Amino acid sequence: MDLWFTEEHTKDVRFSIRVEKQIHSEQSRYQRIDVFESDEFGRLLTLDGQIMLTEKDEFIYHEMIVHVPMAVNPNIKNVLVIGGGDGGTVRELTQYRSIERIDLAELDERVLEVSRKYFPRISQNLSDPRVSFSFEDGLKFIREKEKEYDLILVDSTDPSGPGEGLFTKEFYGSCCNALKENGILVNQQECAYYADYSKFMKRAYQRMREIFPVCRIYQAQIPSYPSGNWVFGFASKGLDPVSDLQSTKWKALGLKTRYYNTDVHVGSFAIPNYIRDMLTDATE
Amino acid sequence: MDLWFTEEHTKDVRFSIRVEKQIHSEQSRYQRIDVFESDEFGRLLTLDGQIMLTEKDEFIYHEMIVHVPMAVNPNIKNVLVIGGGDGGTVRELTQYRSIERIDLAELDERVLEVSRKYFPRISQNLSDPRVSFSFEDGLKFIREKEKEYDLILVDSTDPSGPGEGLFTKEFYGSCCNALKENGILVNQQECAYYADYSKFMKRAYQRMREIFPVCRIYQAQIPSYPSGNWVFGFASKGLDPVSDLQSTKWKALGLKTRYYNTDVHVGSFAIPNYIRDMLTDATE
Repeated sequence: MDLWFTEEHTKDVRFSIRVEKQIHSEQSRYQRIDVFESDEFGRLLTLDGQIMLTEKDEFIYHEMIVHVPMAVNPNIKNVLVIGGGDGGTVRELTQYRSIERIDLAELDERVLEVSRKYFPRISQNLSDPRVSFSFEDGLKFIREKEKEYDLILVDSTDPSGPGEGLFTKEFYGSCCNALKENGILVNQQECAYYADYSKFMKRAYQRMREIFPVCRIYQAQIPSYPSGNWVFGFASKGLDPVSDLQSTKWKALGLKTRYYNTDVHVGSFAIPNYIRDMLTDATE
Repeated sequence: MDLWFTEEHTKDVRFSIRVEKQIHSEQSRYQRIDVFESDEFGRLLTLDGQIMLTEKDEFIYHEMIVHVPMAVNPNIKNVLVIGGGDGGTVRELTQYRSIERIDLAELDERVLEVSRKYFPRISQNLSDPRVSFSFEDGLKFIREKEKEYDLILVDSTDPSGPGEGLFTKEFYGSCCNALKENGILVNQQECAYYADYSKFMKRAYQRMREIFPVCRIYQAQIPSYPSGNWVFGFASKGLDPVSDLQSTKWKALGLKTRYYNTDVHVGSFAIPNYIRDMLTDATE
């Protein structure tokens, strides 16, 4: 049998993974959720036909969304994760003993349940006692919060799906209010290469820049995502992601990582000219 | 009409680009050469069914193979390019007025002819008076050379095709003999993510390490290549690619680049742990 999962990266580009079988499929209240088994990428979790994670390369996304801000401010105690129902971001966060509280605002409870059932190594730390859940829209959840968090991680779906509200100026403003003095906001900002995605990156960057004094982007290679390269946004009320990096303190924690290290941290903020120029245009 | 070019990245992973039409196809003495027209990537050049370059993202590969060594030693005068028949590497090299001579050893003259006909913006500088051609095997070409070059660029096909000899210890030894005192060797070393490719990277690194006192790898995002991320090897008789980087001198040249800048240069040598560990294993 020859079974292939195919994702349209753009209308003219397709990425296909041979799968052994489909092991789950449902239509939740918000989206279609599927799980496939593959040789090359292990299990895949797809939402509305788009790969959210694969067992083989999810470490890159989750390490890069968590350790970059944590190494800039090792005193982070209160964290809000918006989206992230698969549990990968929480798994990385719970490695830090210094973190006291992790609030997870995930719109779709079914993503959590599916991850708990089919991705135990990714979702295992969702049962950490520091984690509490709110199954609601991140945009609504954050509206009432004021100076509660040291770090907000937006581990969302694409802005063309249920994650749309998490790419609005209103949302970034609410994040700013919800953050304490040294607060950091990190979000996933799509890929910079294909115009279908970089338009979201440019818009997100422009909107964040109007609200946060520090606004930068950084990159990671994610083979199962469009173009193989993904962009994250880093915004803060003052901390700089490179000059405030606490390399020595972070290394002293002795955390085991497979992608992240403090050289990669610095390198990930070195942005190729063609992307830098897109962001310059965005702010004009 | 619905026409797709599909490349097998591994036996379980396929990458497809919608093409308008095929505009060239031939079987040369060494390989099959095809040219396609596409909306998303512009024209594609494929050798034996594998994408060598696309008009839209070739700037990344060619800038990264050339400007990294040139920024480490701006006194480079004599350059040997092995492979590189499409002319993209030569186009970047000819931007440097300080370069006096560029020898191109390309096995397959037909690659040059096809590039001249269908990729004029990539191949245009092949007519630069400093460039001379030898249509022969790079492995043979380099055997007789001694201390002739400041820089050797191996812009080859994969080690599973006609480029096989360019990944051998004999070849790296010949490169070392052909290089002057401050000589640098840069080669393409496949992708680090998929095991089918990283086995070549590990082997190449191990063999180069036995011959050159300085041996490092660096990376670039190349959306049309497997995993979207490509590895280059940097070997030298003493110059270090990061601590010997001549940022000020390079910037003073005022060259226009779309991917490369000196921050990206440094960042490209920051290697994720999982790749670093593969190389550590390779040298044990």
